[in-house]
Amino acid sequence: MDVLATLADGVLTVRRARAEDLPALVALIAEDPVSAGRGDAVGDGVGDLAPYAAALAEIDADPAHLLVCLDEADGTTVGTLQLSVLPNLGRRGARRAQLEAVHVSGDRRGHGYGAALVGWAVEEARRRGCGLVQLTSDASRTGAHRFYERLGFVASHHGFKRDLASRR
Amino acid sequence: MDVLATLADGVLTVRRARAEDLPALVALIAEDPVSAGRGDAVGDGVGDLAPYAAALAEIDADPAHLLVCLDEADGTTVGTLQLSVLPNLGRRGARRAQLEAVHVSGDRRGHGYGAALVGWAVEEARRRGCGLVQLTSDASRTGAHRFYERLGFVASHHGFKRDLASRR
Repeated sequence: MDVLATLADGVLTVRRARAEDLPALVALIAEDPVSAGRGDAVGDGVGDLAPYAAALAEIDADPAHLLVCLDEADGTTVGTLQLSVLPNLGRRGARRAQLEAVHVSGDRRGHGYGAALVGWAVEEARRRGCGLVQLTSDASRTGAHRFYERLGFVASHHGFKRDLASRR
Repeated sequence: MDVLATLADGVLTVRRARAEDLPALVALIAEDPVSAGRGDAVGDGVGDLAPYAAALAEIDADPAHLLVCLDEADGTTVGTLQLSVLPNLGRRGARRAQLEAVHVSGDRRGHGYGAALVGWAVEEARRRGCGLVQLTSDASRTGAHRFYERLGFVASHHGFKRDLASRR
C-alpha cells in the first residue's frame, strides 16, 4: 500500500499515488474553481486520463518526485500533493523541495487536513536534506495564502508563468 | 565543449556548465545584491566551493536538469541559468520547465544578453515537450519583473518560500 505516514492520530494516511488513483485525483483537481477555470482537469474528473497517466509514469520514474494521496480511514482520498526535490546552485547549493498541485477536497476544509498534509511534506523535505521548501499559489487564492503563511511560508517572490501551449 | 546554441549572431554561446566553471558562476551569484543579501553565495566568489560542486553533481546526475553558462566569444562567462523539466499532474498533465538562478553579469546589462538566454531556455523547454515555463523572482526585483513580462511571462502567482535551515 506504500504508506508513508499516518497523521492526525491515525485518522489520515499519506501514501504514494498509483495509476488506479488517477480518477479520484483528477476529480480533486477538477472540483477546484481556479484549476477548473484554467482547464487543468476535465470537468467531470473521468474524461481522458491518458495525459495524467503519462505524467504519473514520469513522476514515478524519477525518485526526485513523489505524488501522494491523503486518505481517510475508510480509504477515501481527500487530498493530494506532489513533492519534488531539486538541486540548485543558489542559496549555497542547498537542495530545495517544491510542492505542486496541493489539493484538499472542498467538503473536508476546516478539519486541519491541509495543514497535516503540508506539514508532513515539510518534514519529508527536511528528511531528504532540503534547505528550503517552495511553492507558488495563484494570486486569486487569498485563503490559501493565509494558510501557507500560518505554516511558516513567506510570500517573498512573484511567480511568473508562460504558457507554451498558446503560441504567441 | 558541450555547446547547446549560439545566440546574437554568434556573439554568445550557451553551453553546459562544468565543475571548472563554478568559481565564475558563484562570482555571478555573489555580485547580485539580492542573492548576496540572502547569503546565497560567498562574498568573494572563491570561498568554499564544495556545496556548489555537490549541487552541480546532482544537477548532472539527472537529465531533467541542465545548468548552462552564457559565454562571450572570448570565453568569458557572463550569464547562467538552470533549466529543470518537471512532470506534473496539473494543467492536464503538461510537463513544465522551471528556470532557477538566472543571472547576467551586471556590467553586461542592456545588451539583450538576458533576453537571448531566457529566450533560448523557452525554446529548449518547447523542444523538451513542456506546456509551461515557470520561475519565481524576488519581490524586490522590479526591473526583472518588467523583463520577464516583456518576454511573455505573467506574474499570475505568489511565490512562497520556507527556509528549513533556520528552525522555527
